[in-house]
Amino acid sequence: MLTLYYAPNTCALASHIALEQAGANYEAVRVDFSRNEQRSPDFLRINVKGRVPALATDRGVLTETPAILMFVCQSFPHAQLAPLDDAFALAQINAFNSYLCSTVHVAHAHRMRGYRWADDPSAIAAMQQKVPQSVGECFEIIEREMLEGPWVMGNHYSVADIYLFTLARWLEGDGVDPERFPKVADHRRRMSQHSVVSKVVASELASS
Amino acid sequence: MLTLYYAPNTCALASHIALEQAGANYEAVRVDFSRNEQRSPDFLRINVKGRVPALATDRGVLTETPAILMFVCQSFPHAQLAPLDDAFALAQINAFNSYLCSTVHVAHAHRMRGYRWADDPSAIAAMQQKVPQSVGECFEIIEREMLEGPWVMGNHYSVADIYLFTLARWLEGDGVDPERFPKVADHRRRMSQHSVVSKVVASELASS
Repeated sequence: MLTLYYAPNTCALASHIALEQAGANYEAVRVDFSRNEQRSPDFLRINVKGRVPALATDRGVLTETPAILMFVCQSFPHAQLAPLDDAFALAQINAFNSYLCSTVHVAHAHRMRGYRWADDPSAIAAMQQKVPQSVGECFEIIEREMLEGPWVMGNHYSVADIYLFTLARWLEGDGVDPERFPKVADHRRRMSQHSVVSKVVASELASS
Repeated sequence: MLTLYYAPNTCALASHIALEQAGANYEAVRVDFSRNEQRSPDFLRINVKGRVPALATDRGVLTETPAILMFVCQSFPHAQLAPLDDAFALAQINAFNSYLCSTVHVAHAHRMRGYRWADDPSAIAAMQQKVPQSVGECFEIIEREMLEGPWVMGNHYSVADIYLFTLARWLEGDGVDPERFPKVADHRRRMSQHSVVSKVVASELASS
């Protein structure tokens, strides 16, 4: 039995969709960010980093979206969410996911989590100001160089699509017009219409 | 044949050490950051993101340290740099590597690459000021919660050790005293004494 700790509108959505698409037997437990529950002693015992996603398994807790996504791929190989036996193709997916977590998500995080990297309120405001530009530049590269179409890796749907969809949902909030990126916008539309994806998104929103 | 594009004192060292420890047939090509070669048209054709590491393979170019490390593990399984057949143990390594790239490296990057996230020089200075604290907090968690000892994952040496060593070399430059973290400091000492590691470090420095 797996337990996914998540909060709505966070990157935990990617792990949530992947578990559902894999047909995993799991429970989704909401962590209430409005009450700062992610910093509570109880949750810090689950994830010392005080963040979601966290996936509790029989052998311990896993964190970090790219790691959880790959764990789901390996644990439920029949779902074919990654080319597990092709080291190069798998590395392409890992590279894409790593770019999302270490560059795209980080650019986005300067809008609401600037306090991680500066104390001065005017510096935090300066970071917020640049988010539309820095996030926009990331998606320009994704649009032009990475998203092969129709899926991120071409004809094969994978966890890279789930993760891209999750971060692309933040574009408007980050002050970036998705229509600047026709392939990304089309990808997001197709993903959001997928029955499993829309079911998971709705379940997270209903819980909040 | 593999070609690793690297620059001294960057996170490309992790991929460099991994290739050497795996016994890979590869060439290491230095990208001259002092001449901004990473932004040259020639290099941008190799890696549109203008960063190292980039690993050119027969099938195309791979980027992002966690992806390259896992590619090396899968391509050279006899080197046993990761528990490839144990989804949970592998996910633990992926989670550790993902934390290093998306949180630890990012905290560090605010010292010299603040222009990525703000334009105002005083905001960039404010970011630099917080680096000792933010990087220090990351290594407190690594020391207390993640580094099992003697290796990151306990008794099994893996690419997680190579990557941790690479980022731990930046501590002094980031204004953090490594001796605050006895396990990390001891790990760094043991790693730096390893003949393959010291050979790769020396070769990078000799090229610069």
